[in-house]
Amino acid sequence: MKVNLDEKFGLFSEVYAPKLVAGLNDYDIKIVKIKGEFVWHTHDETDELFLVLDGKLTIQLRDGDVELGPREMYVVPRGVEHCPIADEVASVMLIEPRGTVNTGGAGGDMTKAPEAI
Amino acid sequence: MKVNLDEKFGLFSEVYAPKLVAGLNDYDIKIVKIKGEFVWHTHDETDELFLVLDGKLTIQLRDGDVELGPREMYVVPRGVEHCPIADEVASVMLIEPRGTVNTGGAGGDMTKAPEAI
Repeated sequence: MKVNLDEKFGLFSEVYAPKLVAGLNDYDIKIVKIKGEFVWHTHDETDELFLVLDGKLTIQLRDGDVELGPREMYVVPRGVEHCPIADEVASVMLIEPRGTVNTGGAGGDMTKAPEAI
Repeated sequence: MKVNLDEKFGLFSEVYAPKLVAGLNDYDIKIVKIKGEFVWHTHDETDELFLVLDGKLTIQLRDGDVELGPREMYVVPRGVEHCPIADEVASVMLIEPRGTVNTGGAGGDMTKAPEAI
């Protein structure tokens, strides 16, 4: 079944609550609304793709920031510590292997499993 | 390095000539311009993700068509024969494992390896 991203983004308003919209082999295609600062974390086992659909997203890295606007993407390499942050709500697609934990090895209150929508 | 998709789409005009814009573990993130009909083919080993950025894309399947507009996506399951077609140029992102051949098992003149841009 096809996925209309705008329709899916219209179904929720919580930020940092990843939603599962499709699978690709053993990868998950997720969408998330981002506002405010996440938590610094690292995925030791996988790269992580961020594609911005709407808004502006900063991916803070220890050696500098990556600023993304609509239709811009960035792949955080495995093992690279990062922390997303956005002043206003940004709508973002995330792609990574199924089971990847959103907070990586950091844990804490912002850890949340993706919910299918 | 971040990828600006509009900038990348501006670098070429050929259709059905996939361009490699990023890697995600052992997956390729590719973009392609689509106009006209491709060739019916199947990927026996992998699902294939189509995300339309601009234009309209029809993914013909043997049991019906999937019509995609901007910000709509579809994952063709492995083993499912399909054939993309578009009346006007559509700008599309493709994600699949590195080494996936664009024409699957069909071969022929439209077979083309992705070129990094």
